[in-house]
Amino acid sequence: MNINGKHYRTIWLKQGDESVVQIIDQRHLPHRFIIEDLRTVDEVAVAIKDMLVRGAGLIGATAAYGMYIAARHIAQTSPDDETFTAQLTPAAEQLMLTRPTAVNLEWAVKRQLQSISTVSGAEAKVQRALEVAQQIADEDADACKRIGEHGLSLIEAISQRKAGETVNILTHCNAGWLAFVDYGSATAPVYAAHDKGIKVHVWVDETRPRNQGARLTAWELGQHGVPHTIIADNVGGHLMQHSMVDLVITGADRVTYTGDAANKIGTYLKALAAKDNNVPFYVALPSSTFDWKMGHGLRDIPIEERGTEEVHIMSGVDENNVVREIRITPQGSPAANYGFDVTPARLITGLITERGIALASETSVLDLFPEKRLEVTSTVIGD
Amino acid sequence: MNINGKHYRTIWLKQGDESVVQIIDQRHLPHRFIIEDLRTVDEVAVAIKDMLVRGAGLIGATAAYGMYIAARHIAQTSPDDETFTAQLTPAAEQLMLTRPTAVNLEWAVKRQLQSISTVSGAEAKVQRALEVAQQIADEDADACKRIGEHGLSLIEAISQRKAGETVNILTHCNAGWLAFVDYGSATAPVYAAHDKGIKVHVWVDETRPRNQGARLTAWELGQHGVPHTIIADNVGGHLMQHSMVDLVITGADRVTYTGDAANKIGTYLKALAAKDNNVPFYVALPSSTFDWKMGHGLRDIPIEERGTEEVHIMSGVDENNVVREIRITPQGSPAANYGFDVTPARLITGLITERGIALASETSVLDLFPEKRLEVTSTVIGD
Repeated sequence: MNINGKHYRTIWLKQGDESVVQIIDQRHLPHRFIIEDLRTVDEVAVAIKDMLVRGAGLIGATAAYGMYIAARHIAQTSPDDETFTAQLTPAAEQLMLTRPTAVNLEWAVKRQLQSISTVSGAEAKVQRALEVAQQIADEDADACKRIGEHGLSLIEAISQRKAGETVNILTHCNAGWLAFVDYGSATAPVYAAHDKGIKVHVWVDETRPRNQGARLTAWELGQHGVPHTIIADNVGGHLMQHSMVDLVITGADRVTYTGDAANKIGTYLKALAAKDNNVPFYVALPSSTFDWKMGHGLRDIPIEERGTEEVHIMSGVDENNVVREIRITPQGSPAANYGFDVTPARLITGLITERGIALASETSVLDLFPEKRLEVTSTVIGD
Repeated sequence: MNINGKHYRTIWLKQGDESVVQIIDQRHLPHRFIIEDLRTVDEVAVAIKDMLVRGAGLIGATAAYGMYIAARHIAQTSPDDETFTAQLTPAAEQLMLTRPTAVNLEWAVKRQLQSISTVSGAEAKVQRALEVAQQIADEDADACKRIGEHGLSLIEAISQRKAGETVNILTHCNAGWLAFVDYGSATAPVYAAHDKGIKVHVWVDETRPRNQGARLTAWELGQHGVPHTIIADNVGGHLMQHSMVDLVITGADRVTYTGDAANKIGTYLKALAAKDNNVPFYVALPSSTFDWKMGHGLRDIPIEERGTEEVHIMSGVDENNVVREIRITPQGSPAANYGFDVTPARLITGLITERGIALASETSVLDLFPEKRLEVTSTVIGD
């Protein structure tokens, strides 16, 4: 999408220097737009671990580019294939350990290992690693683009029903292009509609305690020129009671094959309000987010408890535009920080995937992904 | 309640100097505990207007003490009754204009005007003004104490059912003793249970964007020694899904005689989650919070839109304990700030008042307040 009118992905090879991968350091958004050069596997590992990059799709792509950088360094000593592989393995392990729970990370690194092993010769391996990294990035962008096309149909239908009046969409957290390589999942339909000239406006949930909505989603929508308004997480119910929301679209961190969706904490509350006010509630996800082994979200999906400093400490810029951290709670008051909650399928109108829109039910999901039937069945039998 | 082990109300006459009224400057909580002296009507007006004091009960009591201070100043010139009244009227108007929508403010000032007019002689009028101010404060504290006693029965029942295990109570915003003269409304049952030795723990919603939960409720519970945990407003639904909340108690800004409750934005979302998980959801209120002329909350209760700087700017203390304000949103991203939402009666288990607990229905509310029947009926006829 666009930043200051110029098109960017969230990760790319540096113009004129194939040894450098560039990313946006998202820790500084929205107050600073800083592009970082990644030249070594260590730098790539730090970028993932310290969350310069975040979001399932982008983490996967960054790891894939990390493997390419590793391959380039190894190739400098012109090793034989066996030595090459021996030297690549620790780099792969280093990358996989940066965020142990990120599914896409392991998947991307293993795909690189596999692909690199199929060609012989150091230079050929480097070339292959680059191709695969770019493929992974392209596939991620392509899946999000298709999610956008499928979701666009929902927005178009509402726009027509409203005779071209603005369609108001509420989203929670950042499932935007910053979390992927381009387009995003929840935001892809919004960008597609906006770019097509349909009038849209996004209610951006602040998303406490990490404020991904206020920091990232608001920033990326603003950069691309999409009308939006930041609201406290408390506000969505009131807006829905007063017909000020036409559609809710969120992303997801993990979705069971039965349609239960784990997403950023607070998503469940918005889904309840949507149900209570007959507002359609959609979850947008690339199919890699499905967990084909889990059939009961509330019981089975583990919910991460994060550090409580995220609740106590807030960062922003002071009147001189200097970034500062402040404590916003009383000394001695404990906090708790559950990162995600599970929205049961019964509250979800549909799942927007790169293949199309499924109802949030096992039948409908498996109709869209029939090749997964066996995987699911065998799990249920053993359950 | 207690601060550092010493009992305080939120407003009191200075020990040894009846010309000074003292308050806690709540703007500085939880980072600074500052007591302010109020010696003139101007100072009282500023204290209300600039929110050194806030909360329906406390605003009313402060205005009443303001009328006493006005009376003292007028009495210095030993005026006759007519002159006294002529000089008191502008003070009354000044106080009433500080927060035009606060019902208790006008009520307290008018009660003072009426009471002062029934006695003759400047000194007698001052004495009367002091008595009425103290009466209003005492009545407020007494109503909250009774709310505490009635609510205590709910907590005791849960404690018994759990065989003495900790009772987990979730609350939103600050309907604590800081919003009243003592005890609070939503917190009164908690303090009553805690002081009786029943094990309680409070989940304190941060309450964005003004953070009254994280700043005030957490502070007052901590000072009184009540176990509590601050959570982002997004978390309550997850906790209820996992049986980590036994009871929700919130305050209210206005409650219709049919049981619809306007309260701090986000209350509705917690009520939905409570309903979805069979968690009892109670609203605690002194009967002065009922609106006997309104029968349909969602349609009739006006919702205040507040300044958006409350969404953009956050205040707290830096690492040197210096109070700072920071901007937490992107430059150029608009925000919206709806202050309250309406929780429909169908989601409310009961209303805890100083007279007892009513169901959230017209019948049950009027059974508890039969003297209001005529007021309600006449309104409906004219509706």
